[in-house]
Amino acid sequence: MNEQQLAEFKAQLARAARGTFWEHIGAELASFADDRVVLTLQVKPHHMNLIGILHGGVSATLLDSAMGVLAAAARPDDTVVTTNLNMHFLSQVKDGEVKVEAELVHSSRKLITMQGRIYKDNGELSAFGTATFHVIDRRPPKAE
Amino acid sequence: MNEQQLAEFKAQLARAARGTFWEHIGAELASFADDRVVLTLQVKPHHMNLIGILHGGVSATLLDSAMGVLAAAARPDDTVVTTNLNMHFLSQVKDGEVKVEAELVHSSRKLITMQGRIYKDNGELSAFGTATFHVIDRRPPKAE
Amino acid sequence: MNEQQLAEFKAQLARAARGTFWEHIGAELASFADDRVVLTLQVKPHHMNLIGILHGGVSATLLDSAMGVLAAAARPDDTVVTTNLNMHFLSQVKDGEVKVEAELVHSSRKLITMQGRIYKDNGELSAFGTATFHVIDRRPPKAE
Amino acid sequence: MNEQQLAEFKAQLARAARGTFWEHIGAELASFADDRVVLTLQVKPHHMNLIGILHGGVSATLLDSAMGVLAAAARPDDTVVTTNLNMHFLSQVKDGEVKVEAELVHSSRKLITMQGRIYKDNGELSAFGTATFHVIDRRPPKAE
Repeated sequence: MNEQQLAEFKAQLARAARGTFWEHIGAELASFADDRVVLTLQVKPHHMNLIGILHGGVSATLLDSAMGVLAAAARPDDTVVTTNLNMHFLSQVKDGEVKVEAELVHSSRKLITMQGRIYKDNGELSAFGTATFHVIDRRPPKAE
Repeated sequence: MNEQQLAEFKAQLARAARGTFWEHIGAELASFADDRVVLTLQVKPHHMNLIGILHGGVSATLLDSAMGVLAAAARPDDTVVTTNLNMHFLSQVKDGEVKVEAELVHSSRKLITMQGRIYKDNGELSAFGTATFHVIDRRPPKAE
Repeated sequence: MNEQQLAEFKAQLARAARGTFWEHIGAELASFADDRVVLTLQVKPHHMNLIGILHGGVSATLLDSAMGVLAAAARPDDTVVTTNLNMHFLSQVKDGEVKVEAELVHSSRKLITMQGRIYKDNGELSAFGTATFHVIDRRPPKAE
Repeated sequence: MNEQQLAEFKAQLARAARGTFWEHIGAELASFADDRVVLTLQVKPHHMNLIGILHGGVSATLLDSAMGVLAAAARPDDTVVTTNLNMHFLSQVKDGEVKVEAELVHSSRKLITMQGRIYKDNGELSAFGTATFHVIDRRPPKAE
């Protein structure tokens, strides 16, 4: 991905995110390279679960989103969908900003494997996850 | 859990959910028993990901929430937290209502294992997940 | 799969297993149907880990093998390989016979999702797992 | 862990492994440090599955063993057991030597999280996994 493609990709991302769960949850793209992406989220009361800590579903959303951006960028001519997401929740988040880092682990013709980590603003690791993405040829369209 | 405890638990849940991610995402408790819970969600545009299908993070939130309610009810005197969540995404959801079913698989003194499934309104299985919850003694409070 | 195909499949399995890890570990096929398979294993000292309980790798081998047989039978004209295996270890096994049950959860054109459970001879659940298999077209052969 | 404790730990490991699945599978401890361990395995025909590639159960055994050694060393006064093991199988192994690397990701009072990778002798990544270990106090002994 050269600079022009990257700029186009970021603009596409901003447009595509309008009205989606990405925008709804409030994640921001902090940095992006071919095999690594960083998101941030300001943790707010509506991100919490019933016992007052960051909802595991928010962490899952952040990691899936970060990995998904990376997977989409790796295969710009195809559709990629998450097929597996494995989360380890390590320490509780109560407030502040979280940083989400995702990177590509392995890529074959049809499957892409990712890993990602979520850090609290004191630098402590909060969650750790891995995922598999399935590459679906866009032409001809096929139901998977 | 007898009827009175159940009614109290549902009322507690409603109060506890105010302003949390559970309320933010719009899930509804459809039914509840000691070892099985059912939630529903009306899928809306803001639940979608960038390619126009239900965001994996929404599915993860729904399963984690359903399992978490069950885990909390199983140990009313302790705090339970999700430590592992494994999701399999099976078929895409584009609209309609999804139904989320969670049930207890195994329970030991400190760890509870759950499984759950998400169905589309045509009855097709959309996602499938398993999770481990860690039981933390509430007294004395300890950081985990 | 009709009766003749089933008989052929079982004979193929017995031949194919000679000298493999399946034979090395000592698993036996107890029953087999289109969407469900049962294996058994007599637990012996060489199946144990360093603290004297059944090695998690043996449980993983049994579940992967049971699910793999089912996946292979579901796509007799293709090659299927495990891409993800998620294990929950629930209670320790020290001796006796374990029973391994696997069943198909979902099948799409290229991906098959399975679940399986391992029971001790007192009926208690010992392990629980899920897996994804990738269907690779046998013709033309392609490196994955 | 100082040098003497390390030497004792390795000697303990060798003695403890006699007759276990570790010895049965043929893994060798290549190196060991407080937060990282490396094993090797010479791949042989009896490690294969029915389609002639390294059995996923062998990879799971290797990762669980490597992580387990690390977890045991991290808590020399307690018993640690695997509660979750998540495997991603990335590329097939047909022969040669595999190298297994495991490292500690996070440690709390009762739960330890690990990750590990298996490499082929051409350096390609073959499998990738994560696991959770539960720390059980040895005194007083309690059934989990």
